[in-house]
Amino acid sequence: MIVAGRKKEIRTDIGWSDASSITLFGKDFVNEILGHLNLGDMGFLELTGRFPTAAESRMFNAMVVTLVEHGITPSALVARMTYLGAPESLQGAVAAGLNGLGTVFVGSIEGAARLLRDAMPEPDANADFAGLAHAAVASFQEQKRIVPGIGHPFHKPIDPRTPRLMALARETGFDGPYLKLMTAVAAEAEKASGKVLPVNATGAIGALCCEMGFDWKICRGLGVMARAVGLIGHILEESRRPMSEEVWHSVEAQATAHMKR
Amino acid sequence: MIVAGRKKEIRTDIGWSDASSITLFGKDFVNEILGHLNLGDMGFLELTGRFPTAAESRMFNAMVVTLVEHGITPSALVARMTYLGAPESLQGAVAAGLNGLGTVFVGSIEGAARLLRDAMPEPDANADFAGLAHAAVASFQEQKRIVPGIGHPFHKPIDPRTPRLMALARETGFDGPYLKLMTAVAAEAEKASGKVLPVNATGAIGALCCEMGFDWKICRGLGVMARAVGLIGHILEESRRPMSEEVWHSVEAQATAHMKR
Amino acid sequence: MIVAGRKKEIRTDIGWSDASSITLFGKDFVNEILGHLNLGDMGFLELTGRFPTAAESRMFNAMVVTLVEHGITPSALVARMTYLGAPESLQGAVAAGLNGLGTVFVGSIEGAARLLRDAMPEPDANADFAGLAHAAVASFQEQKRIVPGIGHPFHKPIDPRTPRLMALARETGFDGPYLKLMTAVAAEAEKASGKVLPVNATGAIGALCCEMGFDWKICRGLGVMARAVGLIGHILEESRRPMSEEVWHSVEAQATAHMKR
Amino acid sequence: MIVAGRKKEIRTDIGWSDASSITLFGKDFVNEILGHLNLGDMGFLELTGRFPTAAESRMFNAMVVTLVEHGITPSALVARMTYLGAPESLQGAVAAGLNGLGTVFVGSIEGAARLLRDAMPEPDANADFAGLAHAAVASFQEQKRIVPGIGHPFHKPIDPRTPRLMALARETGFDGPYLKLMTAVAAEAEKASGKVLPVNATGAIGALCCEMGFDWKICRGLGVMARAVGLIGHILEESRRPMSEEVWHSVEAQATAHMKR
Repeated sequence: MIVAGRKKEIRTDIGWSDASSITLFGKDFVNEILGHLNLGDMGFLELTGRFPTAAESRMFNAMVVTLVEHGITPSALVARMTYLGAPESLQGAVAAGLNGLGTVFVGSIEGAARLLRDAMPEPDANADFAGLAHAAVASFQEQKRIVPGIGHPFHKPIDPRTPRLMALARETGFDGPYLKLMTAVAAEAEKASGKVLPVNATGAIGALCCEMGFDWKICRGLGVMARAVGLIGHILEESRRPMSEEVWHSVEAQATAHMKR
Repeated sequence: MIVAGRKKEIRTDIGWSDASSITLFGKDFVNEILGHLNLGDMGFLELTGRFPTAAESRMFNAMVVTLVEHGITPSALVARMTYLGAPESLQGAVAAGLNGLGTVFVGSIEGAARLLRDAMPEPDANADFAGLAHAAVASFQEQKRIVPGIGHPFHKPIDPRTPRLMALARETGFDGPYLKLMTAVAAEAEKASGKVLPVNATGAIGALCCEMGFDWKICRGLGVMARAVGLIGHILEESRRPMSEEVWHSVEAQATAHMKR
Repeated sequence: MIVAGRKKEIRTDIGWSDASSITLFGKDFVNEILGHLNLGDMGFLELTGRFPTAAESRMFNAMVVTLVEHGITPSALVARMTYLGAPESLQGAVAAGLNGLGTVFVGSIEGAARLLRDAMPEPDANADFAGLAHAAVASFQEQKRIVPGIGHPFHKPIDPRTPRLMALARETGFDGPYLKLMTAVAAEAEKASGKVLPVNATGAIGALCCEMGFDWKICRGLGVMARAVGLIGHILEESRRPMSEEVWHSVEAQATAHMKR
Repeated sequence: MIVAGRKKEIRTDIGWSDASSITLFGKDFVNEILGHLNLGDMGFLELTGRFPTAAESRMFNAMVVTLVEHGITPSALVARMTYLGAPESLQGAVAAGLNGLGTVFVGSIEGAARLLRDAMPEPDANADFAGLAHAAVASFQEQKRIVPGIGHPFHKPIDPRTPRLMALARETGFDGPYLKLMTAVAAEAEKASGKVLPVNATGAIGALCCEMGFDWKICRGLGVMARAVGLIGHILEESRRPMSEEVWHSVEAQATAHMKR
């Protein structure tokens, strides 16, 4: 329950507009942003309040592009099924699909970023990565929590997106201490569990979020903005070749068969 | 009510994956997409199933970037107020904010695109733009409907984003018949109403959606994907300098003052 | 686009509270409402600003209870699939499920109520029901719109809920002119189409909403409040005997089979 | 990340229907439920799979009625602001409003229920309530977590809903060990903090959920179903006497004043 405190200031620094101009993050939107930034750069601007460098633009766009689309996922099915009932509210179908991006799926980006930040609050190129990783994994095991950002149910033994993200990180200069720590965490978790658990895409992205200085609390936001893009594609396909009605009837029939006997 | 028909195929052409690869829209995601497309390009891919040309990339990114952020809007306030109650569910705050992107705000892109498509189903460089515009505006007036995509409550006399989008359209070769028709519609509406009603940003974007061949039913999707990016920025700011609790208490006090007397 | 007008009053008449009391709709919540009204009565209070009579309580509760649950529906599947990804946000799973209650499903209550109100703006026990129904059905046919509130894809020839709702309407005195008109509309639609199209549950509820004097714009709200109750049951079952992960994998396999060949 | 396991059964026990009947929770919906249960009873049926007794009906309806409405709250403002942009999607406005019912507000019901269940897994009329409360409060303090279900920012010193709920609990026989333990927790927290922290409405409801045997994971659901009812009232009022546009412009002006100077 929130305690009503003393009157606080109502203030934004994001932007304002008047009759002839729009100012966003201190920039003239029309002349300095529009036509200069791509959609991913705009996301970077929202998260940092400044324009990305060329390297940041390349890396950040790759991070969010990774999260746009993965075919038929629960969030895609949710968007399609919602569109079935409310085709006049495309925004509602996307909203419904985003609601499932919680702790189980996209939340692992956040989990990985938090683990890394807790283990190494400030980036340190000379840190004892193996030692930090050992302590982090031990702490997760003690609390019986799953180490986030490693292993993948389908992509085995290696999530194919990870080496590509790592290569892009090297190319753009973002292969820093947090990526090293994430790799050490995966190695440590493999040792502790005896399973093959390499860094997955969300682990790599969580580490890259740390490299870019993002607060772990907002890392889930990369997945949310990305998936909003992907869900539009699913709704478009659903409008042309629908599957959700058939899915509904088929699940209903299967789920109630035992009662109809 | 939906009529249960015969069994239909459950099929997607968006993508699939196996242990070592992800295929999206017929492309090898890891090697052909990741690191090659920016987030806006990825949106274009979702809408068309193919990669954008350089000109398409530039124009499409500008269209969506236009819709990312406009400071304190109802959707931004909704996301912030939702985050106040459920800070653990960033995705829920974005979902809530997107729910308001209906007919009143972002829907005008869809409205403009639909008006243009209805007036000129196929692009025709030699069309009688003034004549088509006259008929379209007359039809809207007859039905007492507001012509979408023209005029703006704040940005007067001209929405500053429009000339910039028009310039980018000329630069990229998208200044085709639908933009001409949109301009003619605005001129016709000004004549019919006696008011200053130039093409606004949503009108320009609606026309550009037609130039790109998008179905009007999906045009609202550009606003939805864009605003998802912008809402992350508002949630981040709310987490650092909150305003929603103060807004709540202030509105509550004002709205109930007459009962407390 | 909304035109920013002159400053308007910010005011609610729903309720307010102070340190020791809560006043809702002019009543002392603790002493006059709590323990006296059931949840359906509370819905009636929200819609009318007054307590229901015994007959109104009985009829209104039956109307909303009708809409709570219908087994595996798209909204139930959406809530379950959302819960799979975000089990920590039960509210997000319900929100996602509600998003699909648009024009296709629950919207037919609204459609029926609107048709009836348009045909007979004020209740008139001596109206020419057959004549009004004939005109209404003809108008829908002319516009190639489906007449709402009649026929049902599963429940054939008769939606079993309708006779029960009709009996309750007689019992409570709500079998007035709007129910008569709805019945006449169904008869007229059957005549015009040659199909068996009796009043379905949403048609009966739409008519009862008119009998109770509700604005057609809010009628969808009965379905929304009711389904929120039902979705909790589905989320509870999903938490105990999950189906959504299996549905996901099964749909994914089926939908991508043609690409994997 | 979810591990794809072996094929699981897709099954529901909630209900099914055929052409002439609807079966819910093993009951004939039309003849045994419709006209017999009120909306709150229907919620009880969803949570327990059985009909409530008269005492359960009275107590459960009071619990949910408590949570329907509290005037201008963040969720009410969110629903109103969403309706401003998408008046055609009433369901989207409710969905948006529900998204904020997270850990901060309605989550305290869940928090209280969980605390009580953790402290006393099975109801025990002869438990050492003071001792259990002491241990529970000490554990929360150690983890620097706020004890849920006690104190209130506005309703001081006593949440007026609590004594009424307690009286109803005595009347219906639900004043059992969990309510005793909740009272002991409040007393213990008061002792430990030196503040006045009596059981609030969410604490009482959380305890009553335990008395009724509900899993703590579903307790938030009572708030969600209840608030869906209340939000309909706010949307109806917003449609008649809107405040959200004025709130938007007023907040925007205030929040950007420092940039416009």
